[in-house]
Amino acid sequence: MSAGAHPQAIRPSIVVVGQAGRDLVLRVDGLPDAGGSAPVAERIERLGGKGASMAIGIRQLNPDVRPTLLAVLGADAAGDVVHREAVAAGLDVAHVTRRGRTALMVDVVTADGERRLLEDAPAESLLTVDDVERASDALERAHVVVLQLQQPATALLAAARMASQARIVLDGAVSGRERDELLALADVVRADAHEAELLTGTPIRTREDASRAAGRLLDGRTTLVALSVAGEGDLVAWPGGEEFHPHGETEIVDATGAGDAFVAGLVTGVRHGESPQRTGQLAADCAAATVQRLGGHPDLEALRAGV
Amino acid sequence: MSAGAHPQAIRPSIVVVGQAGRDLVLRVDGLPDAGGSAPVAERIERLGGKGASMAIGIRQLNPDVRPTLLAVLGADAAGDVVHREAVAAGLDVAHVTRRGRTALMVDVVTADGERRLLEDAPAESLLTVDDVERASDALERAHVVVLQLQQPATALLAAARMASQARIVLDGAVSGRERDELLALADVVRADAHEAELLTGTPIRTREDASRAAGRLLDGRTTLVALSVAGEGDLVAWPGGEEFHPHGETEIVDATGAGDAFVAGLVTGVRHGESPQRTGQLAADCAAATVQRLGGHPDLEALRAGV
Repeated sequence: MSAGAHPQAIRPSIVVVGQAGRDLVLRVDGLPDAGGSAPVAERIERLGGKGASMAIGIRQLNPDVRPTLLAVLGADAAGDVVHREAVAAGLDVAHVTRRGRTALMVDVVTADGERRLLEDAPAESLLTVDDVERASDALERAHVVVLQLQQPATALLAAARMASQARIVLDGAVSGRERDELLALADVVRADAHEAELLTGTPIRTREDASRAAGRLLDGRTTLVALSVAGEGDLVAWPGGEEFHPHGETEIVDATGAGDAFVAGLVTGVRHGESPQRTGQLAADCAAATVQRLGGHPDLEALRAGV
Repeated sequence: MSAGAHPQAIRPSIVVVGQAGRDLVLRVDGLPDAGGSAPVAERIERLGGKGASMAIGIRQLNPDVRPTLLAVLGADAAGDVVHREAVAAGLDVAHVTRRGRTALMVDVVTADGERRLLEDAPAESLLTVDDVERASDALERAHVVVLQLQQPATALLAAARMASQARIVLDGAVSGRERDELLALADVVRADAHEAELLTGTPIRTREDASRAAGRLLDGRTTLVALSVAGEGDLVAWPGGEEFHPHGETEIVDATGAGDAFVAGLVTGVRHGESPQRTGQLAADCAAATVQRLGGHPDLEALRAGV
């Protein structure tokens, strides 16, 4: 294990800004026809949302860190249940705001591994600038801040500005006038093919498309870019080099959460000051470990040895 | 309002034997393709299951009655929530057994009113003969007992035998060696087209099919039969007569729960000793009032005046 980018800090501080809510994963043999019904073969219900999922993965890979989750959970019974789960998973929940209804992500997975997501993220479940400002202490002393971009850009930008000590990891896509400033503040950018198209304005269909798009994103402060090519793999690029991680032969049970596990791997490499090559490999290993299980919940402890 | 079949009883006792659990109703514009996602336009989450839904409808139509729900709810947080809802809805929950995981019925309704049900009814959520025996006092003094047939036939038969004072209303289909004895104990039989086919062994495609099937079921103790013809309406038959209630021009938002509301109407007519004509009309009105709202939860107070 390398000494890390912050050798003075025994417990580095990592903040994840993003969605938290309730995941309901339903495995069915097939979808019923209109008017019909299908028995559920397996049901998983637990803390989810991309922010929470990343924070749990980071905790699994970094048992010396208690990641701070900056997110909103509902002030309802479902919120009580998943809030307890976040505490039990070792997350710092001091900046989890409770209001309204807990977001619900219903993930219907059929026998062929295909998934369909029905997503109910009420407006009150999104972070506001006020929520971010209440977490200013945590952001100001953070060593790594992950910004999951499915949140209002104003709140994300407020968080990025406060995190002046941190390496900033962006996940997803953002458009509008906040995009350029967010990208300018980012050390690491990760996006799937669709998100990369939104970020760069060009379609990502091949490894070469991803390579060109990564080149445009590697600019100024951004020194690590990871872009997915649908059905093929992940390109990891840095100034002067790149590596492609094909998705391989692993049987995909459920692709949910693979991107969140990938980001947990990136954060862990960045936190330890690993090379781009080792960071990218760890991220790809984390994603591969996640698609083999229903529900996409991270289970990354076994990959700690990789860092 | 007629004097009722049991003029001596100020508060007649009604027991509903059937499923209770959690309904999760998700309205989406359309189903996502494989790998895609769709935002949920409306989410309803609450006490459901056909037994609970019928008991709530009966309570709404009969405010002087506190229906006894004989059902199983999970010993989990979701079970706590829906148990409180059952109490608030005015049900007698003394015979709701708590164990295991609460059954979950996910009802995905698209903009065209089509629905797809994903049903997770764990084995431990089904009634056993022991559960029924613990409710023997309530069954022995009941005036009306509804048996929703999606439960183990042995448990249903035990309940029917104990309910020696009661008019017995069957809803659904049952096969196997218990079928004949259950039908022999039934005063009222209600089934949709598919269930009627299972009960009688012949397909129900037209009103004439339903009429013939009803004739076979009106035998011995059974003096009222209601059978649905898919896409057309409900046939209500009694010795010497029948009436057909077409589904009419009502816009269908969600057909969930229409059958449960129909049964609540039948029970109310039976309880008051109404004629088969008035009983059938009330049942049809209850069903029509339910399909106009998402989620199929009964809201039948306005129909009290009909009895």
